[in-house]
Amino acid sequence: MSGLVMPEADAATMARRAEIVADMRIIVPGEGVVETVNEMRAFETDGLTAYRQLPLVVVLPETTAQVARILKYCNERNVRVVPRGSGTSLSGGALPLEDAVLLVMSRFNRVLDIDYANRAVIAQPGVTNLAITHAVEQDGFYYAPDPSSQIACSIGGNVAENAGGVHCLKYGLTANNVLGVEMVLMSGEVVRLGGSHLDAEGYDLLGLMTGSEGLLGVVTEITVRILKKPEAARAMLVGFSSSEAAGQCVADIIGAGIVPGGMEMMDGPAIRAAEDFVQAGYPLDVEALLIVELDGPGPEIDHLIGEVEAIAAKNGAVTSRISTSEEERLSFWAGRKAAFPAVGRISPDYYCMDGTIPRKALPTVLAGMRQLSQKYGLGVANVFHAGDGNLHPLILYDANNPGELEKAEEFGADILRLCVKVGGVLTGEHGVGVEKRDLMGEMFSDTDLDQQMRVKCAFDPQHLLNPGKVFPQLRRCAELGRMHIHRGQIPFPDIPRF
Amino acid sequence: MSGLVMPEADAATMARRAEIVADMRIIVPGEGVVETVNEMRAFETDGLTAYRQLPLVVVLPETTAQVARILKYCNERNVRVVPRGSGTSLSGGALPLEDAVLLVMSRFNRVLDIDYANRAVIAQPGVTNLAITHAVEQDGFYYAPDPSSQIACSIGGNVAENAGGVHCLKYGLTANNVLGVEMVLMSGEVVRLGGSHLDAEGYDLLGLMTGSEGLLGVVTEITVRILKKPEAARAMLVGFSSSEAAGQCVADIIGAGIVPGGMEMMDGPAIRAAEDFVQAGYPLDVEALLIVELDGPGPEIDHLIGEVEAIAAKNGAVTSRISTSEEERLSFWAGRKAAFPAVGRISPDYYCMDGTIPRKALPTVLAGMRQLSQKYGLGVANVFHAGDGNLHPLILYDANNPGELEKAEEFGADILRLCVKVGGVLTGEHGVGVEKRDLMGEMFSDTDLDQQMRVKCAFDPQHLLNPGKVFPQLRRCAELGRMHIHRGQIPFPDIPRF
Repeated sequence: MSGLVMPEADAATMARRAEIVADMRIIVPGEGVVETVNEMRAFETDGLTAYRQLPLVVVLPETTAQVARILKYCNERNVRVVPRGSGTSLSGGALPLEDAVLLVMSRFNRVLDIDYANRAVIAQPGVTNLAITHAVEQDGFYYAPDPSSQIACSIGGNVAENAGGVHCLKYGLTANNVLGVEMVLMSGEVVRLGGSHLDAEGYDLLGLMTGSEGLLGVVTEITVRILKKPEAARAMLVGFSSSEAAGQCVADIIGAGIVPGGMEMMDGPAIRAAEDFVQAGYPLDVEALLIVELDGPGPEIDHLIGEVEAIAAKNGAVTSRISTSEEERLSFWAGRKAAFPAVGRISPDYYCMDGTIPRKALPTVLAGMRQLSQKYGLGVANVFHAGDGNLHPLILYDANNPGELEKAEEFGADILRLCVKVGGVLTGEHGVGVEKRDLMGEMFSDTDLDQQMRVKCAFDPQHLLNPGKVFPQLRRCAELGRMHIHRGQIPFPDIPRF
Repeated sequence: MSGLVMPEADAATMARRAEIVADMRIIVPGEGVVETVNEMRAFETDGLTAYRQLPLVVVLPETTAQVARILKYCNERNVRVVPRGSGTSLSGGALPLEDAVLLVMSRFNRVLDIDYANRAVIAQPGVTNLAITHAVEQDGFYYAPDPSSQIACSIGGNVAENAGGVHCLKYGLTANNVLGVEMVLMSGEVVRLGGSHLDAEGYDLLGLMTGSEGLLGVVTEITVRILKKPEAARAMLVGFSSSEAAGQCVADIIGAGIVPGGMEMMDGPAIRAAEDFVQAGYPLDVEALLIVELDGPGPEIDHLIGEVEAIAAKNGAVTSRISTSEEERLSFWAGRKAAFPAVGRISPDYYCMDGTIPRKALPTVLAGMRQLSQKYGLGVANVFHAGDGNLHPLILYDANNPGELEKAEEFGADILRLCVKVGGVLTGEHGVGVEKRDLMGEMFSDTDLDQQMRVKCAFDPQHLLNPGKVFPQLRRCAELGRMHIHRGQIPFPDIPRF
């Protein structure tokens, strides 16, 4: 069955598509071009399943040279391109466009070099996050950023989204653990940014690429920093009678200069849902629970546990338990890791938000969220990376009740507006994608957005790379007042071209 | 005495200068405009005293609004601007241009906010690096990056150069410790990048700004992360019979996953010069000395010292001493800190280079440097941040011997080429400025440089901000193939405009 993906397309459009597909088959011979509707279904969405779209064609290159030829081809013929890793993103960043080539990097799946002297691993972008740790763990090392999807998500996707995880509080986001990349510009030119050394002269294009959500270039090789596994780790469960008290405890722990390996928080609804689901041994008579993990040499852990206990007591902690074995530590985490599906058991639907706030604003935002919950008449369960202020409120609703989905979305947007109001931002680790594109104006002024767009224009002046993502409104580069596009005008990217 | 800085200028040029000076006096009333030759002498160079140039006029604004008005004015009238902090840079980055306004940020000298809950300090860019630590040390905190010039250098200059220091091995460069900035674009528009939260959606313009050497915008406020002071610190002195063995020991320590607070290396000539100067108690019968500082809780330090000793022994260490008191720890550092002036006592002149290499290449590069020393017939003393591969070779020469200066410069360039050859870069923490501008082609391809220049064009399409620095050859934005400048052509920045 051939790719009749545009049932209403005219003959000229179909002919142009056929030409592109044929040219892609020349660039990527063998199994690397997927064009039937059935086969392309596997690529029509990402982890945010609310959005679905079939691409023009799916191409799975195997070499940097092929990626360069594809991008050069598309650049010259004004064809849009959406890059994609494993497709686990949560904001629609890898969502296909019906008139765009979907460039899937999953065949770039090899670990190329392990270099302990420089504490670096070189991997292709399709390697999963966890596979990097697997490649070095027998020698006592690991790759620190650990998004929940780490078994499936690709390191290339991690770079695109600047992925985080439970341990990014102490060990940093992807941006803090990537040393270098090879990337292909939309023009087909190949550049190398960074390397396995400390710093590079010239502009920090490596940092710019990290978190750019596939709008600036396609990464074809990544050098990451690996860390030695901590000698030991112990976790504490600390219960509070209010989320505000737990939030203040988090702010005080960080304010005291302690940086736990992880510091997660769950509120009453999340605690009870998780305990009911996996029996982690959580206290059921508290309204907030902190899981604080301390790692390092044993004596350091003992010392820090004492400090954390004192701060918790000062903030009115009502329960406190410290893991005494590796099994107990893992059981403390089991509830947290099962919290999302657990919430799924108590509510027909939930909407997961992702915002970040300055840590000291935690009590304010938690109180504000409670007020919003009353205003909208919808429950909210909070499960989040408290230590770094990255909230994941789960808004509970029932899509079968007319209007509840819309209420949930409006509730979510209000939470993000509250995050921005206290000095935070619209996202923590899930990206902007299509989901939060229209909220960017809440965070950024027109001046800010114009400047970001000028940077985009410096990489991809025709807006061919992942258009329609991140920016609320793409302006032609010419409209930014200082640049224009050769080859005449281009249509706005929101309008399919053929 | 008025500012007769351009003795050969014609009347029209002098009239235009007078008009700019008068307009600057309107924007910055009072003492904020300096235009006499005598007064401007204080600003004619930076820490790299080989270059001297008087500016058109010196302006010292006090508010962001004044900076915005100055840049807007200059942008509209095609006047160049060179931003400057304390002027301690070592690559000529703050060197004035005869036709440019020198924008000195030293009156932005206030610490605006101390926020322990978010572990952040907000400071104006003219605040010195050390003053930030002074503002928080009574509460047990400090600001980690510690360039040698920290008593004088400004935090704004640190952002511009992405400054490092002894402790950046463990605690990161400036880029890893800056959370947010307020900056003024050349257009006069004010943008805020980052904040006191974890991460921001949108492009990482904050990372891009850090290390951009004053070519993208003028920073008017900076939020930095502060750290809790380590509970304790102990230093080790480990001697080796060759630099190669010491270099291998450094690579092995890092390869084992140990990250010392600082790990510095000195070779034979530097050891003997320092010992002769300050009597630090260094062994004189070794050819290389490592100073390894371990910080953290006491038990962790004891544990790590044992590991480092074992690695050192495996690499043939011939002497090893561990500090037993704070006084002894400081005496270990006294020789290292006095090494530059100490080398100045044994050679009439020296030329300090700054390159960075992957750590595992240390033995190779040290051996290569010895060969180059023989080839050029010039001595070299090595004093450097070994832990992060940041070399500071001091080339010894006598400027009174004809041709020796040129030989020293060629020797230095060869060392940097060697750094690039082994996968390193041309600079570590001193920037490119004017000093290394012409070596950028050794490191970057034309494609790389074009892409960096496109990013520059996205911020400052007329090349008015700090022109002639960093890039070997400024191309008109239009020449990059995809942008052009409104208002017609602009002259090349290397040609003074009036």
